Amino acid sequence: MIDLRSDTVTRPTPAMREAMATAVVGDDVYGEDPTVNQLERDAAAIFGKEAAIFVPTGTMGNQIAIRLHTQHGQEVICEARSHVLDWEMAMMSAFSGCQARTVAAERGILTWEHIRPAIGAKIYYRAQTGLISLENTHNMAGGTVTPLPVFEEIWHEARKASLPVHLDGARVFNAATTLGLSVAELTRGFDTVMFCLSKGLGAPVGSMLVGSAKAIEQARVHRKALGGGMRQAGVLAAAGLIALHEMPKRLGEDHANARLLAEVIAAEPNAEIDLDAVETNIVFFRLRGAADAAAFSASMKQRGVLGSAIGPHAVRLVTHYDVDRKACEQAAAILAELLRVL
Amino acid sequence: MIDLRSDTVTRPTPAMREAMATAVVGDDVYGEDPTVNQLERDAAAIFGKEAAIFVPTGTMGNQIAIRLHTQHGQEVICEARSHVLDWEMAMMSAFSGCQARTVAAERGILTWEHIRPAIGAKIYYRAQTGLISLENTHNMAGGTVTPLPVFEEIWHEARKASLPVHLDGARVFNAATTLGLSVAELTRGFDTVMFCLSKGLGAPVGSMLVGSAKAIEQARVHRKALGGGMRQAGVLAAAGLIALHEMPKRLGEDHANARLLAEVIAAEPNAEIDLDAVETNIVFFRLRGAADAAAFSASMKQRGVLGSAIGPHAVRLVTHYDVDRKACEQAAAILAELLRVL
Amino acid sequence: MIDLRSDTVTRPTPAMREAMATAVVGDDVYGEDPTVNQLERDAAAIFGKEAAIFVPTGTMGNQIAIRLHTQHGQEVICEARSHVLDWEMAMMSAFSGCQARTVAAERGILTWEHIRPAIGAKIYYRAQTGLISLENTHNMAGGTVTPLPVFEEIWHEARKASLPVHLDGARVFNAATTLGLSVAELTRGFDTVMFCLSKGLGAPVGSMLVGSAKAIEQARVHRKALGGGMRQAGVLAAAGLIALHEMPKRLGEDHANARLLAEVIAAEPNAEIDLDAVETNIVFFRLRGAADAAAFSASMKQRGVLGSAIGPHAVRLVTHYDVDRKACEQAAAILAELLRVL
Amino acid sequence: MIDLRSDTVTRPTPAMREAMATAVVGDDVYGEDPTVNQLERDAAAIFGKEAAIFVPTGTMGNQIAIRLHTQHGQEVICEARSHVLDWEMAMMSAFSGCQARTVAAERGILTWEHIRPAIGAKIYYRAQTGLISLENTHNMAGGTVTPLPVFEEIWHEARKASLPVHLDGARVFNAATTLGLSVAELTRGFDTVMFCLSKGLGAPVGSMLVGSAKAIEQARVHRKALGGGMRQAGVLAAAGLIALHEMPKRLGEDHANARLLAEVIAAEPNAEIDLDAVETNIVFFRLRGAADAAAFSASMKQRGVLGSAIGPHAVRLVTHYDVDRKACEQAAAILAELLRVL
Repeated sequence: MIDLRSDTVTRPTPAMREAMATAVVGDDVYGEDPTVNQLERDAAAIFGKEAAIFVPTGTMGNQIAIRLHTQHGQEVICEARSHVLDWEMAMMSAFSGCQARTVAAERGILTWEHIRPAIGAKIYYRAQTGLISLENTHNMAGGTVTPLPVFEEIWHEARKASLPVHLDGARVFNAATTLGLSVAELTRGFDTVMFCLSKGLGAPVGSMLVGSAKAIEQARVHRKALGGGMRQAGVLAAAGLIALHEMPKRLGEDHANARLLAEVIAAEPNAEIDLDAVETNIVFFRLRGAADAAAFSASMKQRGVLGSAIGPHAVRLVTHYDVDRKACEQAAAILAELLRVL
Repeated sequence: MIDLRSDTVTRPTPAMREAMATAVVGDDVYGEDPTVNQLERDAAAIFGKEAAIFVPTGTMGNQIAIRLHTQHGQEVICEARSHVLDWEMAMMSAFSGCQARTVAAERGILTWEHIRPAIGAKIYYRAQTGLISLENTHNMAGGTVTPLPVFEEIWHEARKASLPVHLDGARVFNAATTLGLSVAELTRGFDTVMFCLSKGLGAPVGSMLVGSAKAIEQARVHRKALGGGMRQAGVLAAAGLIALHEMPKRLGEDHANARLLAEVIAAEPNAEIDLDAVETNIVFFRLRGAADAAAFSASMKQRGVLGSAIGPHAVRLVTHYDVDRKACEQAAAILAELLRVL
Repeated sequence: MIDLRSDTVTRPTPAMREAMATAVVGDDVYGEDPTVNQLERDAAAIFGKEAAIFVPTGTMGNQIAIRLHTQHGQEVICEARSHVLDWEMAMMSAFSGCQARTVAAERGILTWEHIRPAIGAKIYYRAQTGLISLENTHNMAGGTVTPLPVFEEIWHEARKASLPVHLDGARVFNAATTLGLSVAELTRGFDTVMFCLSKGLGAPVGSMLVGSAKAIEQARVHRKALGGGMRQAGVLAAAGLIALHEMPKRLGEDHANARLLAEVIAAEPNAEIDLDAVETNIVFFRLRGAADAAAFSASMKQRGVLGSAIGPHAVRLVTHYDVDRKACEQAAAILAELLRVL
Repeated sequence: MIDLRSDTVTRPTPAMREAMATAVVGDDVYGEDPTVNQLERDAAAIFGKEAAIFVPTGTMGNQIAIRLHTQHGQEVICEARSHVLDWEMAMMSAFSGCQARTVAAERGILTWEHIRPAIGAKIYYRAQTGLISLENTHNMAGGTVTPLPVFEEIWHEARKASLPVHLDGARVFNAATTLGLSVAELTRGFDTVMFCLSKGLGAPVGSMLVGSAKAIEQARVHRKALGGGMRQAGVLAAAGLIALHEMPKRLGEDHANARLLAEVIAAEPNAEIDLDAVETNIVFFRLRGAADAAAFSASMKQRGVLGSAIGPHAVRLVTHYDVDRKACEQAAAILAELLRVL
């Protein structure tokens, strides 16, 4: 099977397995796991922030950040297809008591122009804005990349408006790779950034939240509350250290593979694809003539290629460490065939 | 002052004051207030529902309904400018733990076409839809009216999808007046309906939630929780009975007055107005050339007319019992003058 | 019927009804109801606080206070039978996300000795204490009175520990009457105090929350959220002004009537009563020999006296404005008879 | 260092490390991790329940169970020193919106006699009981064991009252060992049971929730919400399988070591200990003469023994896999010396 459903399916590399087996561990609830502590220090350093905290999932990292920055009864401004809205179980509401104030943006790229009118008027009988939450790359818009100047304007204006800004950077290393920037440069002005050690970086389990020392201290409280206060978490952090230090540099390969797939698909008249939007490791395409995406996915599976039906006529493919160039070429050929007989 | 800010500013009529002074009352937490009990019976009868409950505000009525129909962590589908979203303090999230799933609709009129794609996929790792919440008339869209057939399709499809449907009918008597229907006909398929005794109906305080006996029994629990379990509430219900029985029949006057204002404004080149959208007692208009709505409101006030700046360039006027035909004519003349010198 | 179930059953006096019928009113959401504004000013003045806010119920007032002082995930220290715990629908948890940290105290009188060990240790993996909530008089302990020096120690120590202290003073005028103090003296050190205009003071609907200007400003936000932002609330505030200014001075009569009932009951061998605990307008007694309180209440009702079965063998009587001396004498005689034949 | 602070400090065994390094894994959010699936099947089988779910922490498992069984605004009956109350960050309130209804019980052993009067009266204006949550062994009472007949009565009566019963069985294998029962027998009547693979069983990370298929299906929803939906969780489950199958049989050693410590302490006049309460791997003792527990702990640490000061004069020791007989003998000797010079 060539599994292009998501980069979440990557399996730990041999080096990661070796690291997990030999990790020095301790009780992390007491702050005594040396491997976790190192991972947190390294992540903070790489992002140029004061502190970092290891969490079992990106959802937990994002939801801790939302809880951190807001009060119950406030609003969180986010893009209309953002992960914090669509795939985090309404926890912004269920745990943080906040209402989403959504803005639809082309390719998922929120600008200050979008955000400004979404800020709640300062009157006592209206919910106040508590947080702006952005996403880079933007998953459901197809792995699109928000460029630095867009962020710089938002950071500047948000600061003037005394509004914190969080980045769901589940795939921020992909964005940084495409932009040719360090993640520290790309996320400089965010109050907090969540990024995943799993997904493109290949760790089996784990994400990080980085920010000020004060924010991360408070994050420990919320992580404990959410049930993320694991004991000998160093066994996971050991794999995470490899993900953090070794894997970002190879993301370009995934991007090249996604481009390969996208170009083959673009050549097929039965598929519709926005090639300019294929900036990282995610490929979205639509089937023309309202063909059924679920049925198409099933045909793909029969031929040994897994993808995701996203909506009634759209399919998503995600490249990653466990699918190499050759497998992508094979998958592209199969997709082309299937599209031709649609 | 000719106060056209909102129909919430109406003062109780002499008959209402008299009724309040002579009301027979009891302890309504124990279900022993005869005047409240009569109001609840009458409201249920008029809406053709099994039961009704008196609440101090429309916000409480709507939020009890949302709580009733949902579980924490679900989604509520509503229009992008709906009152439950914009003016109820994010309580859908803060009290019911639900996330809004918003759809923008022309004139605020949600159809099944809008709603269907907003329903969450039935997969365990996505928040499920718990409720569809509609609004008629739609306040922030300018008092627009959703016609019965639109509701009928939604009721039919929602039932098939096992989804409850609530109506924020704060001004449902206005909608029914415009459509020439009874409120019972217009709301037949809703699981619950909230309507206000204040606003167009002129009571000083109070709204009602109507629905099945079971729903209203549960509503009593949530009303108590929200701090709406008042004691000798019959003093308010007495005014409410007059609002319910006497006031709906005169809403046509408010609509005619709104039309008068709208037509005068439409004649002014400096104002932009969608005359077809002025269906009830609310008039929205925009100032051309990006003129400042707050400044315009201030000029109005200096001339003795109160309105609301809604957004940077838009103004809202609402007609009601306390502003008669003559006052509206005066207000129209003043507005015309001010628009001319803009 | 001589209704001794609760002082919540009092009906508005003729003066209150007259005041309601003639009240000058406005839209209180916009802060424009002169009668509400006067009531809020007067209440603040009488309690020696900066500001006050009118709310429809004591539950709303208490729960706003808890929300004001706390963060979700904190603890509220309160007595094990307190009203905020037993009769407010778990809203401390459901709305404020706080956990009760309860301490049982004799006659419901919490002292610093009780409170100190209940404060959460300052470690990140334990919920922190957010508020101390007291009650005077203590309803479920039988209208018992906490004396000023007990409060003074708590205020002093709580300030040192940076913990806010709220008073559920639903019947604080009863406590002040018994102690011969002004409510301002008795509540001087509380951050917020809720008191009821209904109950002993006889208003049909309404309670007040008093505190600092900043706290009350924030209380307006939470009142709106809870659905307590009423429009022409002046019709209720008019009765509230009479309750506030005229009714406290007569509470001694209710206390004398309670004493009368208590002494008659104490003379009956089949009843067990702590006479020293009958300090205000509430009388608790237990039926000896495990006799059934519900059955005893039913017999009382047949003889024209209403009381409440509180637990399997205990009965509660509450004196108030609508039951005069003569009615209490009658009730006492009937109780004595019924106890004799138990 | 001989670390007797908690059995949470255990480090993975070599066999566990080996298993983690070689585990077959997949994406568990999609239900495709074979090792997680096996662990869940095995845990369900061992407890005689239909299904099980792997969670990163015991707190998450307990809080999912509370969320599962309750509605916001209900009450959870639990012992006054229970873990769900004292050490889970008030999440019963902050996430499930439930209020704790606590009962203090000797040795933490709640019986039906304690529970019955704590059930809320069935009146609409009182919070209803949603769940009974028990704990076996009871951590803060010193690892005490609730015997089967006590549970049997509770299961029977709770079923009659239509109340679900959850077991916080973080250390239920310790309880079963002491009682000579299988965990299936000991937990037969619980609707859900949480138990830890870490603590006495030695896995680095992970707990399980077992129950009906329907309950566990719903648990997956709440686990995802809380951020516990990990991807290649099989790396942890691999260690968990060894913990589940191999480690319970050796818990008797920990109990014998605890007994050794307890008896040595009991022989010292400066310590106060309830020897009968030392039933498993936890030892509590009090320092006589109000000696300071924190200072005593510090002295222990200087001598190479770690324990926890629990309260101002009490110390807790916990035996586990990483502290063998010889180390416990050493620790006992050191404690005896320190107690003598107290």
